Amino acid sequence: MLRVPLAELCAGERVLDDTSARYVTRVHRLETGAVFLAFDPVASLEAEAELLSTGRQVSVRMGRPVPCANVPRRRVTVIQTASKGTKIDDVLRDATELGVTRFVIAIGIRSVKRPLASQLPRWTRIAVQAARQCGRGDVPELVGPLPLGDALAEPGTVRWLLEPRGDSLQNAALAALAAMAGSDGATVLVVGPEGGFAPEELALADRLDYRRVALGPFILRTETACAAALGALLATTGAS
Amino acid sequence: MLRVPLAELCAGERVLDDTSARYVTRVHRLETGAVFLAFDPVASLEAEAELLSTGRQVSVRMGRPVPCANVPRRRVTVIQTASKGTKIDDVLRDATELGVTRFVIAIGIRSVKRPLASQLPRWTRIAVQAARQCGRGDVPELVGPLPLGDALAEPGTVRWLLEPRGDSLQNAALAALAAMAGSDGATVLVVGPEGGFAPEELALADRLDYRRVALGPFILRTETACAAALGALLATTGAS
Repeated sequence: MLRVPLAELCAGERVLDDTSARYVTRVHRLETGAVFLAFDPVASLEAEAELLSTGRQVSVRMGRPVPCANVPRRRVTVIQTASKGTKIDDVLRDATELGVTRFVIAIGIRSVKRPLASQLPRWTRIAVQAARQCGRGDVPELVGPLPLGDALAEPGTVRWLLEPRGDSLQNAALAALAAMAGSDGATVLVVGPEGGFAPEELALADRLDYRRVALGPFILRTETACAAALGALLATTGAS
Repeated sequence: MLRVPLAELCAGERVLDDTSARYVTRVHRLETGAVFLAFDPVASLEAEAELLSTGRQVSVRMGRPVPCANVPRRRVTVIQTASKGTKIDDVLRDATELGVTRFVIAIGIRSVKRPLASQLPRWTRIAVQAARQCGRGDVPELVGPLPLGDALAEPGTVRWLLEPRGDSLQNAALAALAAMAGSDGATVLVVGPEGGFAPEELALADRLDYRRVALGPFILRTETACAAALGALLATTGAS
């Protein structure tokens, strides 16, 4: 069934906004009487909607909203340190597909680009589109931007900081498997900027008991690192 | 030490081609007497090179080429089914960073775009650049394009086909861990096109004993899928 993101779901009739109306009647060519699934990924609610009219105004009759069925079963936080260009967008898309539940944008000492809180609505739109495309009923909670030192306070049962000179992924995975056994604990993954972490950031992470983890013998780009590490966590701790 | 890709290494003096000369003297501003590491990722050889002159002709004295030290320790094949746009480029970059040793470009029944063998030199350049950036001394062997049915004949101890309705990643990882124990066997990862695999392709993969593996509960884009699955394999079978 076609899934359409819509804010503020409630039972009854409503007129669709222009973007949603175009998506339903032009892009997907649904006709009167057709049923689609409306979902609000920010509230994680969904409701069936029946198309009542497709003229100048596109209206629907919506059923009772219920909690979205297809949502992550594990709590996974990604702390992404700000990088150049649109890398945060790419990583946020990957993280949404891979079941991340909380996405923290952090500013590190070596972050060249310093994102602004005014970009949060844009990131929310990116996460909502990614959720629609991958069939996910919610979006990661978006947090930040905040200093990396503050972001590292994030609690978790397994906490990895990706670092080329860190412990092997296989050792880290075995330790994570043991730590997560029978627990519903959260995992936290910290991804650095291009220039890497500053010594004082690594020292703070050590004091906070993060495990430094290396993803193989080569130096990964930040966007590759996040997806690969999330795959490793999925394989270790089960579906997120 | 600066790493510079150069073809056909041999001991003795040589004049650098324009691209390499510019890279060494303009981008990195090395001066006469400076030493860099020349490497030929296709032959997986490397040699120290000392800059002799930086005028109109840039010449170097090269030491004896030796096998590159920083190369993958495991054999990992990715079979990437052709997808739209430049997705193959992105996946090839990720695969090079994540230690893939053989990269097969396959054409599936639902591949919208059919790449040509004439693109192989371009893909080689992309892999060489990725190897330089991630500190890897070789590149994946590039194979194809060939029909997916032929590509599936690839041998391996662990063979995964990524499929949203497949076995859980955690189950697949545990089975892979057992299969790879004490072996130096190869792993094979098959990534589908946007439209997914055709029923006859899935049936062939089943006959060839591929395991269908799902990367969590959501439908991943092809470029996210490859990096996440390689991360899961790294965590399971050790550094590639």
